[in-house]
Amino acid sequence: MNKPVLKVGILGLGTVGQGVLRLLKNNAEEIERRVGRKLQVSHVSARSAGKARDCDLSGIEVLSDAMQLATQADVDIIVETIGGISPARELIEVALTRGKPVVTANKALLAEHGNELFALARKQNLSIGFEAAVAGGIPVIKAIREGLAGNRIDKLAGIINGTCNYILTQMQSKGQSFADALADAQKLGYAEADPTFDIGGFDAAHKLTILASIAFGMPLNFAAVSVEGIQSVTAQDIEIAKVFGYRIKLLGIAKRGAGGVELRVHPTLIPESTLLAKVDGVLNSVVIRGNAVGEVGLYGRGAGGDATASAVVADLVDLARGFGGDVRHAVPALAFQPEAVQSLAIAPAGAVESAFYLRLKVADEPGVLSRLTAILAEHQISVEAILQREPSGHEDAHVALITSVIAQQRFDHALNEIRKLPFVRSDAARLRVEKF
Amino acid sequence: MNKPVLKVGILGLGTVGQGVLRLLKNNAEEIERRVGRKLQVSHVSARSAGKARDCDLSGIEVLSDAMQLATQADVDIIVETIGGISPARELIEVALTRGKPVVTANKALLAEHGNELFALARKQNLSIGFEAAVAGGIPVIKAIREGLAGNRIDKLAGIINGTCNYILTQMQSKGQSFADALADAQKLGYAEADPTFDIGGFDAAHKLTILASIAFGMPLNFAAVSVEGIQSVTAQDIEIAKVFGYRIKLLGIAKRGAGGVELRVHPTLIPESTLLAKVDGVLNSVVIRGNAVGEVGLYGRGAGGDATASAVVADLVDLARGFGGDVRHAVPALAFQPEAVQSLAIAPAGAVESAFYLRLKVADEPGVLSRLTAILAEHQISVEAILQREPSGHEDAHVALITSVIAQQRFDHALNEIRKLPFVRSDAARLRVEKF
Repeated sequence: MNKPVLKVGILGLGTVGQGVLRLLKNNAEEIERRVGRKLQVSHVSARSAGKARDCDLSGIEVLSDAMQLATQADVDIIVETIGGISPARELIEVALTRGKPVVTANKALLAEHGNELFALARKQNLSIGFEAAVAGGIPVIKAIREGLAGNRIDKLAGIINGTCNYILTQMQSKGQSFADALADAQKLGYAEADPTFDIGGFDAAHKLTILASIAFGMPLNFAAVSVEGIQSVTAQDIEIAKVFGYRIKLLGIAKRGAGGVELRVHPTLIPESTLLAKVDGVLNSVVIRGNAVGEVGLYGRGAGGDATASAVVADLVDLARGFGGDVRHAVPALAFQPEAVQSLAIAPAGAVESAFYLRLKVADEPGVLSRLTAILAEHQISVEAILQREPSGHEDAHVALITSVIAQQRFDHALNEIRKLPFVRSDAARLRVEKF
Repeated sequence: MNKPVLKVGILGLGTVGQGVLRLLKNNAEEIERRVGRKLQVSHVSARSAGKARDCDLSGIEVLSDAMQLATQADVDIIVETIGGISPARELIEVALTRGKPVVTANKALLAEHGNELFALARKQNLSIGFEAAVAGGIPVIKAIREGLAGNRIDKLAGIINGTCNYILTQMQSKGQSFADALADAQKLGYAEADPTFDIGGFDAAHKLTILASIAFGMPLNFAAVSVEGIQSVTAQDIEIAKVFGYRIKLLGIAKRGAGGVELRVHPTLIPESTLLAKVDGVLNSVVIRGNAVGEVGLYGRGAGGDATASAVVADLVDLARGFGGDVRHAVPALAFQPEAVQSLAIAPAGAVESAFYLRLKVADEPGVLSRLTAILAEHQISVEAILQREPSGHEDAHVALITSVIAQQRFDHALNEIRKLPFVRSDAARLRVEKF
């Protein structure tokens, strides 16, 4: 605790980088009172160093060469807010090699290359802080790694992509189509011009990868996540789900199942009585189930410069407290000691059990329900709820139902047979149902 | 990190003590994988050492003399689960004096004598862990002290007494009277035979005292909390609140207000659309507002042996990581460095601003509403919502209303005049309304 001032270098001056800069300045007194020393931004790197920005750069050296910042001798801690794999990966590697601890909000990089980065950090007796990589300002990494450290965690589920939650909430509350809700989200800046990464579920999958590792003590294994986006969710499904007493949310779910660890991201029907179902708009939320504590939930802003900066600065405060000390006294990157992190068997998709929601367009003719339910019964699938409404005008009828909990494989066998029925029209919707 | 095993002594074998014992045993492997060494309960103290208990005491020395355990040379960490002020206070003092860090769930002791205990711990270069003192298994202390360390926190509000939340939830969902709901809570073990401490709001006030200190960096100041219990809440108020779109919850609120820091525990109308309003039964929840992160909420089990033990063990894990190190590298007890903890002016009760809910029994005669609203208008109090229903049979009528946000003093002046009106019958109910 000798250094009265720790110098922070920020790689990248986008929304998050600027947020960190602003926060360290605006809350400087508050932070110093907590840490016992100053955190001072001495350098930032930005591709266009001269660009006007909504932040005060006085007294800060602005470099156009990020690598120059990562290797800057008089910078104590590096904050990486560039995002993406390259050059963020190389910059972090270089910073660690030069003996600088790192804070990053980069979920893609950690989910795909975190094992190597954490190993390098450990070798260098340094920490990488990444609270900001999942659920923005919500301290969920800390809650799992430290707050629930006494528990064996067997499940977590989270609304961890604000874009998707905004779109689904709009569809729910306004009856909008997916396309209209997406267009609105883009207008408001909640969705990118190319929204694939968010709405396809890949961003949530990166975050889920990180949460699963720290919950179960397994290496980061992004490739093992089965991913389904929200593109195919219709306003009609949301409306029918509501009739059944459910909301549709994009969830990232990590679970110790009978067939192995389940890692999955998909639109999910959840009972509307759960608190998770009530987390709307761009908010994020994660629920964790531990064998001692039961279910613990957190919610808050999952994105935005200030909320993400809140998490980055929390990591800086942690790093400042342990600065220069033996990293073995710090919380291990993946919550478990590196030598205790164990690969776990991943459940094959077919073995994953859940209840299912099925909606079918069917010809309006006699015998439809009877044939449909007969096939389900042949596969030993119970129907928990079913809805058929009168077709309006010349349209086909819709049948929607919710099954008992069964393995995906068995449900898909039944569904294949159902699809072949002569009265079934094209668009069968199949979604998972999770009860908490 | 030299000691491969840390020996833990547990003072008291009640619900929490047994929970800690059970958890350290059942999750021993999981915990060792996280910490890198074993946490082993070597000693426990219990008033009746021979009593049969729902926990495995094999290999553990059971002492009937708690002081003997607190001074036991070969115990590394003391867990205090006796509760109450004395002898818990003396035991913790002795343990600290003997160089042993302490973990406690004792909110009463900390709220009333924490300043002295934390000062002693600091002098001894030791930590006191107290995650379990507030909201059971929910890691809310960690979230505020560490997870939101980059923020200036300006408000927090919490459902931090499960007994009260259970009673109010029963009254809400079943239309039960307070007395019936309390009787049920007692039958189920959610309320003590003498429930004053919970339903009077004192337990919540102890917890709020702790939360306010770590949020604002002020010394623990239990005496400054204004406390109102739930005894006077009627089923009728709950039902009328619902008509207005509110739920009634016992909240602990800490807020930086215009007149100083507000510390208050009282039954509160909160909009039913907020997530806090949806936290029902024995669950606890705390919402914190920081200037960077916005609102962050946590919820989960606030009591019970296992949930509380989850928090105790999280503290043990933290202590084990930093064991023997310089306590200046650890998180300071009150989140801020001891020398930076500052007394803050407390807002006088009369200056505290909020909206108010008022329900009056009035004679069923003309001019009642006009006279009532005239008095409010004279005091520049706007009426945001009002309800008068036809009296049933020979009963008096009820008028209920919600005001604009005003200082308590001004509202009480108006209320005093209203009470003197000839048509007003006895039972005026006055509750605060908080919008988030």
